[in-house]
Amino acid sequence: MTAAQLTLVQIDNYGPWTVTPEPRREMDLQTLQSRLFADLAQYIGNRGGYVFFTRFDNMVAVTNGLDRRDHELLQESVGNRYPVTVSLGVGVDEVPIEALETATERVQAAGSAQSSDRSEALAGEFRDGDDEGEGDVHVAHFDVNDATGKYTDRLNEFDSFINIEQGYASLMKYMREEHGALSFFVGGDNVIAACPDLSHDEYMGAIDHVAADADVQLKVGVGSGETPHEAGYAAKHALEDCRYEGTLVEFA
Amino acid sequence: MTAAQLTLVQIDNYGPWTVTPEPRREMDLQTLQSRLFADLAQYIGNRGGYVFFTRFDNMVAVTNGLDRRDHELLQESVGNRYPVTVSLGVGVDEVPIEALETATERVQAAGSAQSSDRSEALAGEFRDGDDEGEGDVHVAHFDVNDATGKYTDRLNEFDSFINIEQGYASLMKYMREEHGALSFFVGGDNVIAACPDLSHDEYMGAIDHVAADADVQLKVGVGSGETPHEAGYAAKHALEDCRYEGTLVEFA
Amino acid sequence: MTAAQLTLVQIDNYGPWTVTPEPRREMDLQTLQSRLFADLAQYIGNRGGYVFFTRFDNMVAVTNGLDRRDHELLQESVGNRYPVTVSLGVGVDEVPIEALETATERVQAAGSAQSSDRSEALAGEFRDGDDEGEGDVHVAHFDVNDATGKYTDRLNEFDSFINIEQGYASLMKYMREEHGALSFFVGGDNVIAACPDLSHDEYMGAIDHVAADADVQLKVGVGSGETPHEAGYAAKHALEDCRYEGTLVEFA
Amino acid sequence: MTAAQLTLVQIDNYGPWTVTPEPRREMDLQTLQSRLFADLAQYIGNRGGYVFFTRFDNMVAVTNGLDRRDHELLQESVGNRYPVTVSLGVGVDEVPIEALETATERVQAAGSAQSSDRSEALAGEFRDGDDEGEGDVHVAHFDVNDATGKYTDRLNEFDSFINIEQGYASLMKYMREEHGALSFFVGGDNVIAACPDLSHDEYMGAIDHVAADADVQLKVGVGSGETPHEAGYAAKHALEDCRYEGTLVEFA
Repeated sequence: MTAAQLTLVQIDNYGPWTVTPEPRREMDLQTLQSRLFADLAQYIGNRGGYVFFTRFDNMVAVTNGLDRRDHELLQESVGNRYPVTVSLGVGVDEVPIEALETATERVQAAGSAQSSDRSEALAGEFRDGDDEGEGDVHVAHFDVNDATGKYTDRLNEFDSFINIEQGYASLMKYMREEHGALSFFVGGDNVIAACPDLSHDEYMGAIDHVAADADVQLKVGVGSGETPHEAGYAAKHALEDCRYEGTLVEFA
Repeated sequence: MTAAQLTLVQIDNYGPWTVTPEPRREMDLQTLQSRLFADLAQYIGNRGGYVFFTRFDNMVAVTNGLDRRDHELLQESVGNRYPVTVSLGVGVDEVPIEALETATERVQAAGSAQSSDRSEALAGEFRDGDDEGEGDVHVAHFDVNDATGKYTDRLNEFDSFINIEQGYASLMKYMREEHGALSFFVGGDNVIAACPDLSHDEYMGAIDHVAADADVQLKVGVGSGETPHEAGYAAKHALEDCRYEGTLVEFA
Repeated sequence: MTAAQLTLVQIDNYGPWTVTPEPRREMDLQTLQSRLFADLAQYIGNRGGYVFFTRFDNMVAVTNGLDRRDHELLQESVGNRYPVTVSLGVGVDEVPIEALETATERVQAAGSAQSSDRSEALAGEFRDGDDEGEGDVHVAHFDVNDATGKYTDRLNEFDSFINIEQGYASLMKYMREEHGALSFFVGGDNVIAACPDLSHDEYMGAIDHVAADADVQLKVGVGSGETPHEAGYAAKHALEDCRYEGTLVEFA
Repeated sequence: MTAAQLTLVQIDNYGPWTVTPEPRREMDLQTLQSRLFADLAQYIGNRGGYVFFTRFDNMVAVTNGLDRRDHELLQESVGNRYPVTVSLGVGVDEVPIEALETATERVQAAGSAQSSDRSEALAGEFRDGDDEGEGDVHVAHFDVNDATGKYTDRLNEFDSFINIEQGYASLMKYMREEHGALSFFVGGDNVIAACPDLSHDEYMGAIDHVAADADVQLKVGVGSGETPHEAGYAAKHALEDCRYEGTLVEFA
């Protein structure tokens, strides 16, 4: 049974900071945001977790394998190296959206995202190491069938992007509403989703929905494991299988 | 009259590289992509340009103020420091989508995005320095009215994100189809668009469309200048005016 | 008794790479080197270890707390994100220089630093987790007495630097020859040394030597712990004690 | 005639910051310092300048080609992205040490390196664009003869490092005292020096001095140009000539 540990990373009081005393140069903000995300990707990633940039000022991570001490150290290290700090909320649930709901509530309970009083809040429960198991995390890795041939090599980049983006907007909504799964665009034509334990037909249903709703043809590889990296790595291999077999859904 | 110089930055043969000889760790790919974007943001940004992460393997930049030599040096520096290289196409037009169309065609003409033969292609025309003027670049900076109060402090982060994302998907499509403008999500609840010269009513039309289509209430500040930074900085100030005045559209 | 685990990080075939096919831009090389070091500092540092830039193409780390798997993953992550790869050798000994001797021999045995055949060698023994103890690592943190008042605020920066540098050159040689300790300049007026278990008088001997040899007045805080971070953090506090007490040697 | 423009980059009030409220994790400080240096290397480097890490909290740059506006923007961008700010002093002189003397005095005049009152000072004179010429900057690139064969592949890394470091300590002192030149270790076995216009015999004198004083055999390539990059690039090629010809001093 899935037991996803979700962490919400929220930059403290970021909105006001970006315009104080004057609006800051946009490209400096972009640099700051993407480097902070890169640092989280390394820190969380080399402990077996996954983090997604989401809105950059709010990032969502699947952190099975990281305990409270790992979260504290992350917070301390960001505070030592950036002009901003981060608050962290953590939740665990069979359904990813429920875990994130809990994680978010814990951050919200500590103060508004635009409060100058809240700094480096950390609250949550952590998946107990003794309970960890192979089936804790389910990851689905979607991509677009022949995106290079159909879009990248034929359309201008923005029209390629619109297609990918409309497909993503459709998928993220469907997966959340139908299954409580969290789907994140990760670049190129790739979407990675933290899912509960779903069947072949349920994945086909998602693919069919996006094909009908946004006219984008997806395929998906699915994996599970004790950590997001293990589940995601298995999912990547399953997606390679789709490529070779010409199939739309493969499980590792 | 707008004369936007658009650059397409495309990582050479990136898709195959990410799975050779085996799929690479996803968090390493995320780190690579976001740091490459950050480096471009610094390089292009401190020369007055803007770059957007778009799909990360394909990034779109507004590069008024950067000449051929600047592009060559960028390419050389990336090649010296990353395990991947980038091809660059550049176009200039009154309408941003037309400039990007030209830029993209130039990269496509040099070879497929997944060709191992193409490396560091650079082709394009550049806005002549002597012709540069105040009205060359128009930038619109949109954000969501009270996103913190309505979403971030109330909903779980993924549902906040879905709202922002659906609003963005709606806006990007409308602005491109109606006006040939290119709209990019830049984090938080912010979207920055490279636009032709549009009127107050045309911006109101976009805001109304998104409100009706995706139930998201936007406001927008608009600026113009010789470079994206100048235009964008003016747009940020205009957006601050919206905030203080309670208006939906302000021009710098 | 000290049981320092030392890791040599050597970039594979770096010298030839920097001039192939033409000499690469020096500032790109500097960027690559310092960012690689920064990444190691994060990876090793947030696992309790210390890494020093040394010559940048060869870096020395004290890695008590990191096992073989941690080393493999570091190697993989560098290979995924940089245009160069690294070989790693690891040794454990009561005397730091002996541990590094073993670590270096293991890398040398795998091939020359300028061999194109050697790539991502990894060889070594690791401090057994069960044997780890409080006294495994001894760290001494030296700084220069009133460096700001005597140098930084009075001399031009290069002459300040010459003083610090001559002091460092004297200290590193003395500590290595007398005690098999490894001393690294870490910026400002700070030197951090991985040491065997030394007495108050032995540290005073080092300080006296540098005062006589290079006319630079040092003080030192010393700490021990299970990891370099623990030992080094205690040493920093001891150095603060020197500052407040006006003493030259303090143990945590 | 040489007309070197030297910039001192000094982090404001850095020492106190590193221990407030408690000593910060050393590896976070190392990360911060080396990334700040990397950012300066990119910013200054892709404008034709050179920057050296020196003591990291104080960095020295040769900035011919960068004007006041470039310096202001650098300062703004650092302030937007780091938890620390930098002050900048600039001087121009035929002899590099004199230019740095002026640059340093300007920063010192604005306040102590450990004053919480000084923030983002910027003072200096800039090499006038109209006066710039081919001979403005002289760069010498030294390396150690067969360092890999003699040291890296034979000794443990610390003993290799001691040799390189003693050679550097000797060279930096000699070149400063005899010629007012500024020599910086840049990794591996490489030292780059900003020099006045020196003769073949004067370079041979330096090499002989280091051989006698520190028993390290250097060779050197020398170049000149309008910017440090041009001069340094020519010097690298000249050093390659030494390698092929078996000579000790070559001019581009």
